[in-house]
Amino acid sequence: MLSDKILNADSIAIVGASKTVTKRGYQAIKILQEERYEGRIYGVNPKIDNVLGVKCYPKVSAIPEPVDLALITTPAKTLPGILEDCGQKGVAGAVIIAGGFGELGAEGKKLEAEMTKVARKYNIRLIGPNTSGMINMHKNLNLVGLRNAPKGGIALISQSGNMALTMITEAQIKTKVGFSYYVGVGNEADINFHEYLEFFENDPNTKAILMYVEGMRNGRKFLQRAYQTTRKKPIVLLKSGRSSTGKRSAGSHTGALAGMSEVARTAFSRAGIVVVEKSDEMLPCTEALANLPPIKNNNIAILADGGGHATIGADELTDLKVNIPEISEKTQKKLKDILPAAASTANPIDVAGGADDNPLVLAECARILLHDSNIGGVLVVGLFGGYSIRFSESLAYAEEDAAHHFGKLVRETGKPVIMHSLYNFAKPHSLDLLRYYGIPVFDSLELACKAVGALAEYGGYLRGYKSKAKFVFDMGAKAKARGREIMHTARSEGRTALLENEAKELISLHGGMICHDCLAQSPEQAVAMAAGFEEKVVMKIVSPDILHKSDAGGVRLNLKEPEEIRQAYRDIIDNARAYDPDAKIKGILVAPMVNEGLEVIIGTKNDDQFGPVIMFGIGGIMVEVLKDVVFRVLPISAYAARGMIDEIKSVQLLNGFRGQPPVDRKAIKRLLLTVSEIIGAYPEIQEMDFNPVIVYEEGLNVVDARIILKQP
Amino acid sequence: MLSDKILNADSIAIVGASKTVTKRGYQAIKILQEERYEGRIYGVNPKIDNVLGVKCYPKVSAIPEPVDLALITTPAKTLPGILEDCGQKGVAGAVIIAGGFGELGAEGKKLEAEMTKVARKYNIRLIGPNTSGMINMHKNLNLVGLRNAPKGGIALISQSGNMALTMITEAQIKTKVGFSYYVGVGNEADINFHEYLEFFENDPNTKAILMYVEGMRNGRKFLQRAYQTTRKKPIVLLKSGRSSTGKRSAGSHTGALAGMSEVARTAFSRAGIVVVEKSDEMLPCTEALANLPPIKNNNIAILADGGGHATIGADELTDLKVNIPEISEKTQKKLKDILPAAASTANPIDVAGGADDNPLVLAECARILLHDSNIGGVLVVGLFGGYSIRFSESLAYAEEDAAHHFGKLVRETGKPVIMHSLYNFAKPHSLDLLRYYGIPVFDSLELACKAVGALAEYGGYLRGYKSKAKFVFDMGAKAKARGREIMHTARSEGRTALLENEAKELISLHGGMICHDCLAQSPEQAVAMAAGFEEKVVMKIVSPDILHKSDAGGVRLNLKEPEEIRQAYRDIIDNARAYDPDAKIKGILVAPMVNEGLEVIIGTKNDDQFGPVIMFGIGGIMVEVLKDVVFRVLPISAYAARGMIDEIKSVQLLNGFRGQPPVDRKAIKRLLLTVSEIIGAYPEIQEMDFNPVIVYEEGLNVVDARIILKQP
Repeated sequence: MLSDKILNADSIAIVGASKTVTKRGYQAIKILQEERYEGRIYGVNPKIDNVLGVKCYPKVSAIPEPVDLALITTPAKTLPGILEDCGQKGVAGAVIIAGGFGELGAEGKKLEAEMTKVARKYNIRLIGPNTSGMINMHKNLNLVGLRNAPKGGIALISQSGNMALTMITEAQIKTKVGFSYYVGVGNEADINFHEYLEFFENDPNTKAILMYVEGMRNGRKFLQRAYQTTRKKPIVLLKSGRSSTGKRSAGSHTGALAGMSEVARTAFSRAGIVVVEKSDEMLPCTEALANLPPIKNNNIAILADGGGHATIGADELTDLKVNIPEISEKTQKKLKDILPAAASTANPIDVAGGADDNPLVLAECARILLHDSNIGGVLVVGLFGGYSIRFSESLAYAEEDAAHHFGKLVRETGKPVIMHSLYNFAKPHSLDLLRYYGIPVFDSLELACKAVGALAEYGGYLRGYKSKAKFVFDMGAKAKARGREIMHTARSEGRTALLENEAKELISLHGGMICHDCLAQSPEQAVAMAAGFEEKVVMKIVSPDILHKSDAGGVRLNLKEPEEIRQAYRDIIDNARAYDPDAKIKGILVAPMVNEGLEVIIGTKNDDQFGPVIMFGIGGIMVEVLKDVVFRVLPISAYAARGMIDEIKSVQLLNGFRGQPPVDRKAIKRLLLTVSEIIGAYPEIQEMDFNPVIVYEEGLNVVDARIILKQP
Repeated sequence: MLSDKILNADSIAIVGASKTVTKRGYQAIKILQEERYEGRIYGVNPKIDNVLGVKCYPKVSAIPEPVDLALITTPAKTLPGILEDCGQKGVAGAVIIAGGFGELGAEGKKLEAEMTKVARKYNIRLIGPNTSGMINMHKNLNLVGLRNAPKGGIALISQSGNMALTMITEAQIKTKVGFSYYVGVGNEADINFHEYLEFFENDPNTKAILMYVEGMRNGRKFLQRAYQTTRKKPIVLLKSGRSSTGKRSAGSHTGALAGMSEVARTAFSRAGIVVVEKSDEMLPCTEALANLPPIKNNNIAILADGGGHATIGADELTDLKVNIPEISEKTQKKLKDILPAAASTANPIDVAGGADDNPLVLAECARILLHDSNIGGVLVVGLFGGYSIRFSESLAYAEEDAAHHFGKLVRETGKPVIMHSLYNFAKPHSLDLLRYYGIPVFDSLELACKAVGALAEYGGYLRGYKSKAKFVFDMGAKAKARGREIMHTARSEGRTALLENEAKELISLHGGMICHDCLAQSPEQAVAMAAGFEEKVVMKIVSPDILHKSDAGGVRLNLKEPEEIRQAYRDIIDNARAYDPDAKIKGILVAPMVNEGLEVIIGTKNDDQFGPVIMFGIGGIMVEVLKDVVFRVLPISAYAARGMIDEIKSVQLLNGFRGQPPVDRKAIKRLLLTVSEIIGAYPEIQEMDFNPVIVYEEGLNVVDARIILKQP
């Protein structure tokens, strides 16, 4: 884990300290003084004696006392030398502001490599480069030019200084929440996202983590950490750079591997992260998750004092897949007892003016609803906080009373209340009271719904997290002796792919299907093997040098009679020799002809950021025209395998279509798990491609299987 | 068009005037006085003499001077009587606050019918019932309890009082825009949406129209009007009730036909309406459209002073289908001349600190960009307005100067500038200046992008509106004599469906395909007809009493030899007689067997709100599993027909798939236009179903065609 000396440094050296007011080396010292940093500050600049009374030294190693952290404000090219000096001094970490590294192409990458080499030599951990800095709010260690950031429980990790500024400004203006830390991750030259995450997971001041990400250097380690973190603390994440222009923009900006693959979103969700799509949603979701219990059963009641808001709220929550269940008759009766006849009590509940002269009625409705075990939380929409403005000033006190009731209800029931208020702008005391109890107040109905969605999503995750992904392979543990032998043979023959029969054998070994294919070495062997099948057979050349078997005339279909099998054997060999006289021929695969069934494809690839990833789709039009495929970061559980199958848009095809029987989903699931197991068992494998796989009412047939090995 | 006496009334009677402060009949008079309504006010209440000095009369007809409009605050059941009295007096319109009509089921509907009958008798136009009222801002005619609404150019039409309150509050707090009118449409018992629209289209105070809709009584008339209106003024519309719970909520609330069919969104867009999905987007889009020129070429430049905002903006605009074109080299050179070396100039443009000490640089960049003919507008994202807060107080004046430059640029170039500012909350004068020039300022980056999207969408519509929909049938104009004869025959035989041969003949008559099918009356005729085809033939029973031909043993395929044709004829007749001894048999259709091709389906239905609608989809899996179908309100132009084809998700199947040749799109387009023409030509038709239609490399074949007639 990251040393406390980095994010909780007790002493800091400002390298590039300056007397020029507009320079970072001046501003950095000024803000540390203003914010009353609890540690010691040293300036480093050979040309000056002090800045604002802070003594300056010619170099870091000249400072007589221990230095935990260096804030380096000088240009990129000075970094290797300065870090060398920091290393001599035993500095634990450095915050590197300068840009001009990885984000500026080859030259910059070289400089970055040089810099990190020095840092590794002395075990100096680097924040950045190309970062706006770091803030430890509770120690007043502010290494960014941001003033007046509110203190609180949110750790903010951002790859854009402006987005950090956005979040901090928004928190200040719109909420009572504040921050424990801000870290500008920059180019991730040394410290990666997952290390910050681990630190905040264990930080007692941090209740929730908010992230803005443009790209990650080590997505898998991040997932592995996030899976642990989200069991204890919620994470909200916005990933930008999803469009090609966005990717270009992010690339020129962070130098990270910008634009994550399409697997990112699902992977983050599987790790329990609440992924948002809009920057507007970042703080609202974080505020709700940091302060409120999550919704445990995905059921919400909408409590409204007007129809329009109720209708829009119902639409939004439906889009967010939160249930708005009809309220039980028993509970409806209790509501009807205190509401006017015109009220709707089914859900959304519309009090229809029933609270106009007494806003406490709303709190009473919430009490009734939250004590119904089927209701997981209440979203109040409309005018609360403004009854005193809209109807009568004297209602302000009743609204404040109601706010206390709402707040205590949350504590009493362990269920959340979320408030949308049209009168938020007027800053009534009642709404401030709600925030005191941790109830967030939104003037946007959509954002209020989004906060509900986040609470429901996180609650759902915690409910079932044991079946979720850890993203860890027990590498090699499930390898079979015969499987290792296949790998060994391929390696010893200098091959970078398994032969078709080897690939199929591997699938059989790991339980993905029963394979009847045989490898014949002579026409007579082929005839004998074919005699063992009821069906007609297909014959295919097996050669490490012939990848495209059909092109080489290496495939013959629909064979039955001994003479046609002998002839086919000879033809295939002749064709192969003609195609490539030097091709090594391992034999001819004899396999039963495939019956009609549903065509699916399964494959894996090695993602730059996440490592091994599995893909599933229904073959033909669905994959080729509609790109209807699903990805998961490997390994997968049975839960994830079922999830993949269910997520396919054309899933109905599996249920039987136009009179076809349903196909064997269990067999597909088994094959997906087999793929996951094989990837974990044999680290030699680079990627796999099973296309097509034919699935029947019972069982399946991997018709063609290609397994590519890593370059040795 | 609506009489001026209704929305611009010069005199108003408050029916149900009251001395009780909490009653609407008191508040209504109070607010009219406070807001200084320019017309005359009369109270109506037999029990009191005056309210706040306004004289009360026992009934409306007792008022000695003319009364334009009555605001009726009494309960639902009093309405028929009061309207009778209003009618005697010659009142032009009434605003009916009471609920308890159509939204409360059968009893309420009856009362509503009774009330509208009286209104029609005297030609009294009704706003509502179940409405929060109406405001004419420029006349201070405020019949709603809303105070302090800002005056301006937006006409607000809403089916929810709370949503009106939301919009008005938001305008007050966040913008400089205001309202010309507010109308609470309520249950639409009399005046429909399209009538308000026409009024606002012609109102000189109205620059843009903002609508919140839960359901519409007459969608087609609305579309016909909107098509006209949007040529002159932009319309922004949010339609809620898209989820089933939302529909239920809306239904209990407005009593309108809540929850529009899926055709609504496309239809609104074809009429030039900017449809938004979130209530947060309503005012931002309206503000931009009311104050700024639209984007003419769908191209925007993003001008940023930080990477994160640029990246998020690029993602958002890409989702909204706005182009972010790479800036020409020539223009990039001009930008580079005034920006630091680290700046990105490709688009997004990131000034990379180049404006930190001089915000005028941003305005200068905007000038360079807007003078590039390829750029249709500029979105500025980031810190503008806050340079004085973030960097140095003295920059406030430069920011104000820049604001004047931005504002004048819009006037000079006729292209919009949209501003996102993190410092909007601080209300700097520079941002107020922008608003003075009509440039909207958003603290949400996503909403700023949405406003850009609205300007681009409206600009695109105006550019091509001549090819867009008018939603008007020239009913009967394109009918053929033979077509009328077919209808006549069917009617005279008491049928509610055309026979298959009649349906196909109709399609041929209107140019949708060439039909070779023949109707045989005897085995020998069938043999002779079959001899005329190269292909084998299919034979099908033709009987008005047999809808499901296959079930009746009424279809035989793949026939060629005379004897098998004779036998098939006899078998089909026998089967039909056995199936239904009373069935009238018109003959047997002899048609060439269908070659292989791509299966599509085309149909029409009569939508409750929009009338005739056409549907197109690719048959089989695409329609049945993926529901991949496209709808358009009829009639359609060639432009719309092409749009339907292109919108199908599986459109790639039309281009040829797995070695198939591309299919004849023109033939599909022709058939779609034929359907549109037929629906317009023969008002007898209720709905049509062509399924399947087989499309070839050249031409197509409507294999089965069903045309259902309206009940006579």
